[in-house]
Amino acid sequence: QGCEEPSGDTDDGSPKVIGFIQPQYESHFTDPGTSTFKFMRARLGVTGQIPYDFTYYVMAEFSSFVSSGGNPFLLDAFISYRRFEWAKMSVGSFKQPFGLEVNTSCSGLHTIMRSKVSDQLISPQRDMGFMVFGGTNENLLQYQFAIMNGTGLGVKDNNSKKDMIGRLKVNPLDFLSIGGSFRYGYPINNEETRTSFAAEFEVNLNNLLVQGEYIYDEGDQNPAAGGGCGSDPVILGEKRGGYWVQGMYMTKWMLQPVMKFEMFDLDSDIDENEEYITTFGLNYFFNDWTRLQVNYQYKAEKAGEVENDALLMQLQVKF
Amino acid sequence: QGCEEPSGDTDDGSPKVIGFIQPQYESHFTDPGTSTFKFMRARLGVTGQIPYDFTYYVMAEFSSFVSSGGNPFLLDAFISYRRFEWAKMSVGSFKQPFGLEVNTSCSGLHTIMRSKVSDQLISPQRDMGFMVFGGTNENLLQYQFAIMNGTGLGVKDNNSKKDMIGRLKVNPLDFLSIGGSFRYGYPINNEETRTSFAAEFEVNLNNLLVQGEYIYDEGDQNPAAGGGCGSDPVILGEKRGGYWVQGMYMTKWMLQPVMKFEMFDLDSDIDENEEYITTFGLNYFFNDWTRLQVNYQYKAEKAGEVENDALLMQLQVKF
Amino acid sequence: QGCEEPSGDTDDGSPKVIGFIQPQYESHFTDPGTSTFKFMRARLGVTGQIPYDFTYYVMAEFSSFVSSGGNPFLLDAFISYRRFEWAKMSVGSFKQPFGLEVNTSCSGLHTIMRSKVSDQLISPQRDMGFMVFGGTNENLLQYQFAIMNGTGLGVKDNNSKKDMIGRLKVNPLDFLSIGGSFRYGYPINNEETRTSFAAEFEVNLNNLLVQGEYIYDEGDQNPAAGGGCGSDPVILGEKRGGYWVQGMYMTKWMLQPVMKFEMFDLDSDIDENEEYITTFGLNYFFNDWTRLQVNYQYKAEKAGEVENDALLMQLQVKF
Repeated sequence: QGCEEPSGDTDDGSPKVIGFIQPQYESHFTDPGTSTFKFMRARLGVTGQIPYDFTYYVMAEFSSFVSSGGNPFLLDAFISYRRFEWAKMSVGSFKQPFGLEVNTSCSGLHTIMRSKVSDQLISPQRDMGFMVFGGTNENLLQYQFAIMNGTGLGVKDNNSKKDMIGRLKVNPLDFLSIGGSFRYGYPINNEETRTSFAAEFEVNLNNLLVQGEYIYDEGDQNPAAGGGCGSDPVILGEKRGGYWVQGMYMTKWMLQPVMKFEMFDLDSDIDENEEYITTFGLNYFFNDWTRLQVNYQYKAEKAGEVENDALLMQLQVKF
Repeated sequence: QGCEEPSGDTDDGSPKVIGFIQPQYESHFTDPGTSTFKFMRARLGVTGQIPYDFTYYVMAEFSSFVSSGGNPFLLDAFISYRRFEWAKMSVGSFKQPFGLEVNTSCSGLHTIMRSKVSDQLISPQRDMGFMVFGGTNENLLQYQFAIMNGTGLGVKDNNSKKDMIGRLKVNPLDFLSIGGSFRYGYPINNEETRTSFAAEFEVNLNNLLVQGEYIYDEGDQNPAAGGGCGSDPVILGEKRGGYWVQGMYMTKWMLQPVMKFEMFDLDSDIDENEEYITTFGLNYFFNDWTRLQVNYQYKAEKAGEVENDALLMQLQVKF
Repeated sequence: QGCEEPSGDTDDGSPKVIGFIQPQYESHFTDPGTSTFKFMRARLGVTGQIPYDFTYYVMAEFSSFVSSGGNPFLLDAFISYRRFEWAKMSVGSFKQPFGLEVNTSCSGLHTIMRSKVSDQLISPQRDMGFMVFGGTNENLLQYQFAIMNGTGLGVKDNNSKKDMIGRLKVNPLDFLSIGGSFRYGYPINNEETRTSFAAEFEVNLNNLLVQGEYIYDEGDQNPAAGGGCGSDPVILGEKRGGYWVQGMYMTKWMLQPVMKFEMFDLDSDIDENEEYITTFGLNYFFNDWTRLQVNYQYKAEKAGEVENDALLMQLQVKF
């Protein structure tokens, strides 16, 4: 559920230091243009195993470009009890078990940015709560079900009702998985609710990987709960939705071209306000721990084209 | 003096990563009621030994529910010189050597919350300064004496006079220890002073542990210096005091029932304003590093009963 | 480029925890006088090597006495590609490659404080960007050249032009090195520029070490970019400059007397506003990782003597 799965196989009982950093250069073709070096993410933490059935995972975000105040903060931190294969349990802070892209680890994303629909509608992406889960990619079924505050990281719940979030994945064939997610929550108070659905698929054939997801979301929202990694939350309409689909091919030179197409509609009751982003990317893997990503984002607004294309370059080291 | 004693026995010279996390669920029976998942504490740090006589200890708090701004901060960080058994020295930030409960490590508390009298009167609980100390639980005598800023963590002293804090413990019998603490300080300026005393006892017989403490405090105060782990400081009268006493029994099933009774009087010059809290607890130790605590707090106010009982559940993993 | 050079020789691939803490007591002979315990620095991080050519370095500052808000922050964090001896590359956050004193590691400074001219004119001392560098103290030549935001740590660039900073060092004799630095940048916008120069020398003969540096700086400035470790930036004139020179001798008792003289002129167009600081210091090395420093600062202001001398004492442990 964290960005990284706690491996649970540290040979001795001592904590294992883990993390990754993502220095990034980005150029935005706005008018006037801007460009900057920054850290997309800079994470440091520990994970480990308590004999026999407990694992722990503690990860902090140190990039100044993520939280609104620019300060470090505790990201994922949870204790898991793994005795029962089909009813593992975790308590602490972790990602909402909703959607394929949000639950892809931040160091394993295929494009530098998640889609706007994932960042804006699966909000808060991280929260505090309790989760039951079972199954792996090797099983026919995988599920996660969580009860969470619904207010995001570092904030006490503002109401006494808890949010319920779940995801179910089916792996019918070796190269295919399909899945669905739902959420029913109380973003602000005990009365107004929010309901969200998502459907996902993934085809993984030899060196080709194709993925996609559709997300629908309606009802109340808490903009203070924040969206994805440092993205500013937008004000949403009563109903909103969007989708993304991407394909990539790993060549023998460890060079992986990727193309992604996404649509985001922040208010379904208004026509002509959809945003479309096409990302042309190239990933190069120096080795298992080092990756360079170059992305060009072509952004089209149905309501009237805005100059906001961007070129992003990111180098990542994982440890 | 930190929450954890630096072990000083890391076999090689390399820093040892240590810490613990305390995800917690709490329900407050106020009107309207509230409930939330949170982190009581989430700590990460390192400790180690410099051959031959120095040790170091660095610990940061990452829980967003402790500091007033919600940000991580440096908690205990000190260098110790341990050449002389009866005059060990530390410099840096650490707990004031005052009182039994405050100097019980945060991962070794028998109830989820410290008593209100410890949190409110031993303020600041942590501070920067210099300490001389000697003796262990195995000796007849143990002492600690410190000179500290008196302004709490992360703040320069606001006056040129330093606070003096000391604690003396006597272990006359195997199963019994008694002790006393004092503090004489300058919370705000060079003129107004604060004087505090405490008396403590502990009986440790087979699986039974009984402890108690009385604290008296008078004079000036600096509310900005903060109290215990994330508790909001209250405005105190000229004289204030209180006590707590608790007993617990470790059964052979690693299940430990605990009961605690405490009184806190924030202004001794006003009658009928005492608060009484009775805590009914159950601790379960999965193993040496993993503990589940369930506490029910029955809170009685002499001035007029308020609806504020609470149910707390905490899972802790130490590493 | 970080305070510590990533060693690149961790035997296994796992991250190595590194850091140091500097608890400090200081007394300022102002009227009224002040005195306090504090942390000059408290740093914790990791470094490591990715086979075969990459290294990483991540270091956070945890002292509450450095950043303006008192919060921890990411200091140096960079990925280096070391395949080409004369064209190594780094990307991330690190010190500007400008000047001898700023590029002396913070745990290896010979006096407790850097000179005022280094702290005030080489601002921001740390920044985000890309660097090419080559050579070591063993070579005749060493160079560093960087393209950086120019806005300091944790802030996006406020303009689309980047700063260029470089340093060249020549080691003509075993015991002698001389060098020069330059910077050409855009502190606030794409129009107003800033130009800086520095010249340095170092003589290292047996146990004697003599160093000095002259810095000249003119043009625009961004006070928000901050100066050195927690020093408050002053408002500078159009042209400003200064120098420092220091000598020290390591005796056989591991006791090292040091004397430093420095001048800082914050506005060359105004006469009689120079500040002179003479530092009398004594360094004692308990061992390779533990050092005690005592400094007396005699501060003289040409415009009229102010009572502001200071006594500083710092204990440092490195790990």
